[in-house]
Amino acid sequence: MARDFLRYGMVGGLGFIGAVHRAANRFDFKTELVAGCFSRSEEKNKEAADTFNVERVYSDYKEMARKEAELEDGIDFVSVVTPNVAHYEICKEFLLNGINVVCEKPLCFTIEQAKELKKIAEEKDLMFGVTYTYMGYPMVKLAKQMVEEGKIGKIINVNAEYPQEWLIDALNGDSSTTAKLSGWRSDPAVAGAANCIGDIGTHIENVVAYVTGLKIKRVAAAVDYFGQDLDLNANILVEYDNGARGVYWCSQVSMGHYNDLVFRIFGTNGSIEWHQENPEYLKVCLRNKPMEYYYRGTGNIYGNALANQRVPSGHVEGFHVAFANIYRAYGKALLKKMNGEELTKEDMDFPTVDDGLEGVKFITACVESGKKDSEWVTL
Amino acid sequence: MARDFLRYGMVGGLGFIGAVHRAANRFDFKTELVAGCFSRSEEKNKEAADTFNVERVYSDYKEMARKEAELEDGIDFVSVVTPNVAHYEICKEFLLNGINVVCEKPLCFTIEQAKELKKIAEEKDLMFGVTYTYMGYPMVKLAKQMVEEGKIGKIINVNAEYPQEWLIDALNGDSSTTAKLSGWRSDPAVAGAANCIGDIGTHIENVVAYVTGLKIKRVAAAVDYFGQDLDLNANILVEYDNGARGVYWCSQVSMGHYNDLVFRIFGTNGSIEWHQENPEYLKVCLRNKPMEYYYRGTGNIYGNALANQRVPSGHVEGFHVAFANIYRAYGKALLKKMNGEELTKEDMDFPTVDDGLEGVKFITACVESGKKDSEWVTL
Amino acid sequence: MARDFLRYGMVGGLGFIGAVHRAANRFDFKTELVAGCFSRSEEKNKEAADTFNVERVYSDYKEMARKEAELEDGIDFVSVVTPNVAHYEICKEFLLNGINVVCEKPLCFTIEQAKELKKIAEEKDLMFGVTYTYMGYPMVKLAKQMVEEGKIGKIINVNAEYPQEWLIDALNGDSSTTAKLSGWRSDPAVAGAANCIGDIGTHIENVVAYVTGLKIKRVAAAVDYFGQDLDLNANILVEYDNGARGVYWCSQVSMGHYNDLVFRIFGTNGSIEWHQENPEYLKVCLRNKPMEYYYRGTGNIYGNALANQRVPSGHVEGFHVAFANIYRAYGKALLKKMNGEELTKEDMDFPTVDDGLEGVKFITACVESGKKDSEWVTL
Amino acid sequence: MARDFLRYGMVGGLGFIGAVHRAANRFDFKTELVAGCFSRSEEKNKEAADTFNVERVYSDYKEMARKEAELEDGIDFVSVVTPNVAHYEICKEFLLNGINVVCEKPLCFTIEQAKELKKIAEEKDLMFGVTYTYMGYPMVKLAKQMVEEGKIGKIINVNAEYPQEWLIDALNGDSSTTAKLSGWRSDPAVAGAANCIGDIGTHIENVVAYVTGLKIKRVAAAVDYFGQDLDLNANILVEYDNGARGVYWCSQVSMGHYNDLVFRIFGTNGSIEWHQENPEYLKVCLRNKPMEYYYRGTGNIYGNALANQRVPSGHVEGFHVAFANIYRAYGKALLKKMNGEELTKEDMDFPTVDDGLEGVKFITACVESGKKDSEWVTL
Repeated sequence: MARDFLRYGMVGGLGFIGAVHRAANRFDFKTELVAGCFSRSEEKNKEAADTFNVERVYSDYKEMARKEAELEDGIDFVSVVTPNVAHYEICKEFLLNGINVVCEKPLCFTIEQAKELKKIAEEKDLMFGVTYTYMGYPMVKLAKQMVEEGKIGKIINVNAEYPQEWLIDALNGDSSTTAKLSGWRSDPAVAGAANCIGDIGTHIENVVAYVTGLKIKRVAAAVDYFGQDLDLNANILVEYDNGARGVYWCSQVSMGHYNDLVFRIFGTNGSIEWHQENPEYLKVCLRNKPMEYYYRGTGNIYGNALANQRVPSGHVEGFHVAFANIYRAYGKALLKKMNGEELTKEDMDFPTVDDGLEGVKFITACVESGKKDSEWVTL
Repeated sequence: MARDFLRYGMVGGLGFIGAVHRAANRFDFKTELVAGCFSRSEEKNKEAADTFNVERVYSDYKEMARKEAELEDGIDFVSVVTPNVAHYEICKEFLLNGINVVCEKPLCFTIEQAKELKKIAEEKDLMFGVTYTYMGYPMVKLAKQMVEEGKIGKIINVNAEYPQEWLIDALNGDSSTTAKLSGWRSDPAVAGAANCIGDIGTHIENVVAYVTGLKIKRVAAAVDYFGQDLDLNANILVEYDNGARGVYWCSQVSMGHYNDLVFRIFGTNGSIEWHQENPEYLKVCLRNKPMEYYYRGTGNIYGNALANQRVPSGHVEGFHVAFANIYRAYGKALLKKMNGEELTKEDMDFPTVDDGLEGVKFITACVESGKKDSEWVTL
Repeated sequence: MARDFLRYGMVGGLGFIGAVHRAANRFDFKTELVAGCFSRSEEKNKEAADTFNVERVYSDYKEMARKEAELEDGIDFVSVVTPNVAHYEICKEFLLNGINVVCEKPLCFTIEQAKELKKIAEEKDLMFGVTYTYMGYPMVKLAKQMVEEGKIGKIINVNAEYPQEWLIDALNGDSSTTAKLSGWRSDPAVAGAANCIGDIGTHIENVVAYVTGLKIKRVAAAVDYFGQDLDLNANILVEYDNGARGVYWCSQVSMGHYNDLVFRIFGTNGSIEWHQENPEYLKVCLRNKPMEYYYRGTGNIYGNALANQRVPSGHVEGFHVAFANIYRAYGKALLKKMNGEELTKEDMDFPTVDDGLEGVKFITACVESGKKDSEWVTL
Repeated sequence: MARDFLRYGMVGGLGFIGAVHRAANRFDFKTELVAGCFSRSEEKNKEAADTFNVERVYSDYKEMARKEAELEDGIDFVSVVTPNVAHYEICKEFLLNGINVVCEKPLCFTIEQAKELKKIAEEKDLMFGVTYTYMGYPMVKLAKQMVEEGKIGKIINVNAEYPQEWLIDALNGDSSTTAKLSGWRSDPAVAGAANCIGDIGTHIENVVAYVTGLKIKRVAAAVDYFGQDLDLNANILVEYDNGARGVYWCSQVSMGHYNDLVFRIFGTNGSIEWHQENPEYLKVCLRNKPMEYYYRGTGNIYGNALANQRVPSGHVEGFHVAFANIYRAYGKALLKKMNGEELTKEDMDFPTVDDGLEGVKFITACVESGKKDSEWVTL
């Protein structure tokens, strides 16, 4: 009988984003959380399992990977929602045990690690998702479609940014606040080579690549550390393989911006603009036409964007729903694969280990350019 | 042992809003859907039960009420998500069987029905929620708090509106489109005395009453039917018990507005404004201060608004999350009650049968005023 | 030889709006201020004349009217920029002396006065402008054109408002501040039957009538005095001659609104929206199209809207320029008339004594309805 | 007797910006246009003089400079409003004849020319204004004040941009349209080393320098020519003397942007943001406070910003008024100087030849960096 339901496990996930992963998985009655290794603290681990009604709780992710692989009704995939440093080892462990993976971004610390994970996943024929959330928004999908259709012509310039304000206290010597706020993200041993670029800069890279289909050739980055071990702000010149250029800006110390991912794509025939903090519309400006705003849920939405809508226009589908869309796409594809069906390009419309690898390349190049006084660094 | 988990059933719920009810209930790992009577079509009913993994599926809601009441692990509450006409009978049936209720708005057709439902719920000591969604948004709660604190002074004027565009085709003679779009909402036998006022005008009444604490004394309504059986647009003068006045406008034929609930409350010392289509901020204008925007998730949010937040600022919490907040509050209160704990005013921060009754009064008065060439009608 | 230049005089004009009249007249090198009776204070009158390089300064407007009429190079028109109470007498005096008039709004206190002024102007064949400024904005003209072309279909509803905050202190018992702020506007002997409706409500009436071409049949107004002699806030149900209805709201006690004239016109095929505080664009929402924003100065502007533009898009043409457009149109028409040329409908695209009369009718009806507990009052 | 009135002449000025110069000068009854050399075409020159009521019309600017210098009532200053290539020679000629100058930006082609003009002006003790318009907006002045007061702390990052769309056709091979649109601006012989950077990029440099008080140390520019002789788009990394960094972006091929100068200044304690296309407010975000919007004309405006206001809040003061503010400040300072009064720092609050020089340095450095594959170039 064809499978129509997935069991999954979680490693980590007691921060806010873990709750989002779980809610996202529950939107569609297609996945159930059945196993977990939620915390190194035995107490927290148990408590979490209780709260989530999870019976199979493990204190060691390796044991979890091994045992779940042996169970007949073991997990079909694992969600890895730990601090960055652990992604590589955990993903690898589950892959080696033959279990599909969804991992938070950034995928891992080094390009080598990312390539290795990709290689194992391919060799083992496993499905590997990476939660670059913003690909899940219908209006981002509409933007991608419009670019593909040539609506804005050949792309000539990109201006994209992702400013936040939450680490501003780091600039004001308030280390306790900083510690409280930032936790592991500003510790190189846990976060990796970058903080700001790794946490949010990589989202810019991902969403622009998704929408434009362009590959970055090289970057020239002015990376600001403001006396900290890891970066808090970066202005990055970007050059794409088609010769177009642009600027990415990410920041965690920019007052008045909360989670303000914005992209503006300019072509020879028009432009497209999207704001994550108000995600329901797409601004489209074409030659010889008035400025247009496409709204989610209206009759002007089509294709994959339409397929990813859940409620009528004006009922805002926010962050959780975008996340749910990622998991729904991943889950659908995984079920098809498990049932031996052919996967189409549309089926694979979710972020994979390839996106994860591109992200690590981008982070690595930006950090290197920053160290070299903003020299161009090829990806 | 104290209960910490609820079982619920659903009657109806195969439209888009039913999916929202279910997703909302699943956000918090505290309620599970275990029984349902989803459709009069046996096939659709079964299919739905399958999809939602619901074992106890009923073809008759009366049977469901009776049987669930007898089960040891029967449902703790029922969600009624049917067309308006059925609300009264279904709610009554479950109440009479001793089962708590959550019902979609408008609660029922007549003031008498609403009063009867309220009376039964009180007599049976049952908890009765009515899903006036917009009370669930943190920023609406912040608005309420600010008004209570006297931040904007004494309220002198209210301007609130809820325009939509989705029935515009009714004005263009496209009856097939209209039929497809509007379904039962424009049929008096199914929708009740009002379409537009009943479906969305009532939301204005509810959210303004919640935020301001004011009671409407009388209304003078210009209700537009445009040749249809039920109203499609209404401009309503409102007078409150404190002498302040205002205007409510609801419409389903206003191009460019999707689900555009907006309230602006004006006081002797300032004003407060909120937009449902961009629900993450509150505009606050006080004497002798620059215009202020409060954003959800920032350090400026406090009290019950803060308690209803789930993710950091800038990660938009949309319609589903507001709905989840309603169910979370209802569920928490119900669990406390079931466990014999004292319920505080804070515990009861969700829409109840009282809100349902007020809604019916408002609808009734507006329709009457409209029939009387906009005479003032007292509620 | 054909006249290509106008001489004008001013009565009053030492408040802020007088300066706007003068700057507006100087934009186009077509009119020169050559005579004035700027103040009852001899000192201020002289000082003003000095500042404006005006040689012919009069201490009495009657003398001014008489003498200027006798001069060979006397003024071609007079601008009346005094408190409301004086409009009627002054306009009449100049008209009777055969001098063309531009008068501030509201034109006068009573319908009879307005009709009399109109009659004299017609009998004497004089040109009578009334400075309803907002007709001067290019994007308002574009809105009018679009409605005329049937772009939004038959009009079914209008929502228009003009809230300000500057008299808020009147609600807080700060009479000195109020006095300072409001001056004569809240004194019935000087302002007339209405304050808020007369000063700004009348602008709503004018701009909506201009854009829609609809005539108001009757109004039902809730007028708020808050203990003052004259109104500070009004919510007004409106019914037009085509059966459509709407709401107008004007206020001087609404914190967060400065001069916030907004109209939204809804038709069977679409809607049009304009904001005076950001006057460079028009929001247009049509069935089966994405939401559109037309920007002044772009290739999408045409007709009379185009003809009233002065600088490229994005270089904001504000309040002074709208005023200049009114005077330019008035001046052009007057020159054509003086030169014996035929006047077209396009030539007369500025507010006249007819607009002035309509304004007085509207004010009168609203005040009456307010006194009658919001009964419908026919205009 | 003290002078209280200025006579000025104009060279060039038959494009749209010339009309703005003239209207700006007429706002305040303090300057009169009395001489001109408006065009090389004798016919256009005469016609312009007629239109502007100017008696002293010259066909040669050198003759104009010489003759006006000799007249007792000759011009007090000249406005140079020609294509860029002529600025240097014309300014020099008038300076050498002892006549004060206001010149359009960019000041001239080379740093040497700019330094020479500055030197002559100083030696001759003449007042030299350069019309960097955006310094004239009250809200830009408010931003400057707030930065000076330390409201946003130490500046750490700047993000500023000036995109336009008007040359988009150049990318679509429509040379006739391009020619019509761009005229001399894309011809190196007439425009100088840069088109986009020279025309609008220089405005970014100027307004940011004015607001922040920071000096640019070096730039790394990605300059896009898209096959044209001069630049159409540039992304520029900037480093200031205080170590802070930022990005400037200017473009003439970005659909959906008309004249969209925006600056966002980020400090350790807050941020400030201003949009030229909606110039009446300033967005201010400070730590531990809700987001604030300061509006022109309200009680929250103070200092020099307040002094530069003309009409109450909500009556938009647009581009012409900003220009008028520049001329009013220049004129006031010139009159004080001519009357032998001491000039304060406040008196000199307008753009001078120093701003002109900084602009040329910036343009030169950006072009050079662009040629060197975005290497850092020191100013």
